[in-house]
Amino acid sequence: MSHDCIFCKIVKGEIPATRVYEDSQALAFMDIGPVVKGHVLVIPKSHHNPLMETPVEVLQNLIVVVRTIARAQMKGLQAKGISVAQANGKAANQVVPHIHFHVIPRFTDDGFHGTWIAQSYDSMEEMNSYAGRIRQALV
Amino acid sequence: MSHDCIFCKIVKGEIPATRVYEDSQALAFMDIGPVVKGHVLVIPKSHHNPLMETPVEVLQNLIVVVRTIARAQMKGLQAKGISVAQANGKAANQVVPHIHFHVIPRFTDDGFHGTWIAQSYDSMEEMNSYAGRIRQALV
Repeated sequence: MSHDCIFCKIVKGEIPATRVYEDSQALAFMDIGPVVKGHVLVIPKSHHNPLMETPVEVLQNLIVVVRTIARAQMKGLQAKGISVAQANGKAANQVVPHIHFHVIPRFTDDGFHGTWIAQSYDSMEEMNSYAGRIRQALV
Repeated sequence: MSHDCIFCKIVKGEIPATRVYEDSQALAFMDIGPVVKGHVLVIPKSHHNPLMETPVEVLQNLIVVVRTIARAQMKGLQAKGISVAQANGKAANQVVPHIHFHVIPRFTDDGFHGTWIAQSYDSMEEMNSYAGRIRQALV
C-alpha cells in the first residue's frame, strides 16, 4: 500500500469507485473519464509500479482479469472489439503511478483513434542497431 | 498454425523478421513500422486470436515476455517510459489477426500521442448501467 496513491485508496474504499470485478488480488472498476463508454481499469490490490517492476505472479493474475473483463464487455455491451492499453512513466502519459490496464470496449466509428502513425527506420542497419541494443539488454 | 497468417509465417521463418527474443512459446521481433523507434511486437508461437479466446497459460507467458522486453528497452535504449498496447478486432484497429502486444519505448516529446480524450458519462446512472451490464456478463 502507498498512502498517497489514489488507486490504493480505491482498493481500501477510502475513495469511491464503481467496481465491476474483484478477487483476492485484483480489482476492476469503471474509469470515470472513459475514452469510450464502458472503459474499465484493472489494477492489483497491492501497490506496484511500473509493469517492469511488478512481480510475475501479479502480472499473470492481472492479464487473466483483463481477459475476463474484455469478455464481459463483448457480451454485456455488445462491443465489436477491445483495446487494451497500459502506460509506464510520464513519457508514456501515465497519470496514476500504480500499474493499471485500460480495457476499452470498441465500436465501429466510436471516435477513439490513437494517432498510430507508423514511422520507418532510415535503414535496415538502423533497425538492427535498435534490435541489438534491446537484445544486449535482455536480462 | 494458420497457413494464411503473416505472424505464423514469421514464426516458421517463411517471412523474415528481426528477432530480439524467443522462447519455446513466444517470439518478440521488431515492428518494421514503429510508432517510436525500438517498437517490438510480442506474439505466441501458436496461433490464437483475439485475447478473449487466448488460453490463460499463453497469455501469462506473453505478459512476462512483455515485461522482459520493456525492461530491455528501458536499459538498452535508455527509454524514459514504455507504452503497451494490444488490439482486438477491426473496431479496435487490429490489422493482423494473431494476438500481439505492442511494446513501445517512450521518450520525452517522442511525438507519439494517442488522442486519449476522456469523455464523461451523462450521469452516474448511465455509468452504473454500463457497470451493471459488464457485471452481469462476467462468466
